[in-house]
Amino acid sequence: MNIDKISDIIIGRLPIYLRALQRMAERGLRTVSSQELGEMVGISAAQIRKDISQFGEFGKQGTGYSISFLIERLRAILKVERIWDVAVIGAGDVGHALARYQGFVNRGFRVSMVFDSDPQKIGQKIDAFIIQDLARMVEMIRSADIKIAMMTVPAAAAQEVADKLVQAGVKAILNYAPINLNVPPDVRVQYIDPATHLQRMTYYL
Amino acid sequence: MNIDKISDIIIGRLPIYLRALQRMAERGLRTVSSQELGEMVGISAAQIRKDISQFGEFGKQGTGYSISFLIERLRAILKVERIWDVAVIGAGDVGHALARYQGFVNRGFRVSMVFDSDPQKIGQKIDAFIIQDLARMVEMIRSADIKIAMMTVPAAAAQEVADKLVQAGVKAILNYAPINLNVPPDVRVQYIDPATHLQRMTYYL
Repeated sequence: MNIDKISDIIIGRLPIYLRALQRMAERGLRTVSSQELGEMVGISAAQIRKDISQFGEFGKQGTGYSISFLIERLRAILKVERIWDVAVIGAGDVGHALARYQGFVNRGFRVSMVFDSDPQKIGQKIDAFIIQDLARMVEMIRSADIKIAMMTVPAAAAQEVADKLVQAGVKAILNYAPINLNVPPDVRVQYIDPATHLQRMTYYL
Repeated sequence: MNIDKISDIIIGRLPIYLRALQRMAERGLRTVSSQELGEMVGISAAQIRKDISQFGEFGKQGTGYSISFLIERLRAILKVERIWDVAVIGAGDVGHALARYQGFVNRGFRVSMVFDSDPQKIGQKIDAFIIQDLARMVEMIRSADIKIAMMTVPAAAAQEVADKLVQAGVKAILNYAPINLNVPPDVRVQYIDPATHLQRMTYYL
């Protein structure tokens, strides 16, 4: 099957598999069955076998999957066998947390710029980063050819900032502002909003 | 249709609708069509009508939905017409950001306790919160009858902390640690992991 045709739902599960596999590799494990992987990620073994079979023949009946081989293939499919530069827009609490987060690099990402519009923050440091002026964002992102941004700006500013990111050539936005963004069809947006996640659980309480 | 039978996929969309509707209400709007709401949240009007019809008769052909009525109903269905106390476990960068976040209260939540195991952090303040000793977590959460926790601990500690949360009576965990948790079937877990979200987008770059 053509990898381009893999459904977005399957693609959404691949990073979960990759994360679990990387954790197993760190523990020194070498092979895993679909059953074991399934228990680790809370997805049925049959679903995992089906998902993985979408992009080729892996594993043998009874011996399980080679963890390192599966990691390699998943990283290639998800295009994280390289390191992507990421811009952080908004140097508030969440922006700080993202700029300082140590968990990105072994998963394919590196924060390389942080922007804010607050004159009191511009020029200040977050560890090694100097907070840059939002007014220079389009120019700086474009000249560095950055394709990915994480937005931690207030909801009221989010659409305007997103428009500028699109103008700068960004194609993937992880949006922490609690608002849906309108972007052209060739730009992907993912949302992180803790209150939305919490509300999804309170229904069941 | 019995509300208990609404599928988890639909439940997952309701907080998105609610967020958009609350934003419209703040702007002073009073009615909205499924078309308009759909454009705002990136979901088809037909899907929205179908989702909303699962829990009763709303709106009239041609006049759209009453925003305030729909907000009221969604809040009742999601059980956020009240305020839930939430414990934050882990007082690192993300824990700080969550403890200080102003956006929870109008969406049904209030951080009421923050825990950490680091002796240098215990007793310190985050705004009005005094960071409590993780060793006292089970007892304090249980006696305050807290049902919801946000976990921002390192991956290596996450399962152990989750086990203690379950022991304390927590039924909903928002997990920021990049690891899948094993919990009993009556406990819900949602995950926030920016690298996973980013990897889901790099596939398309």
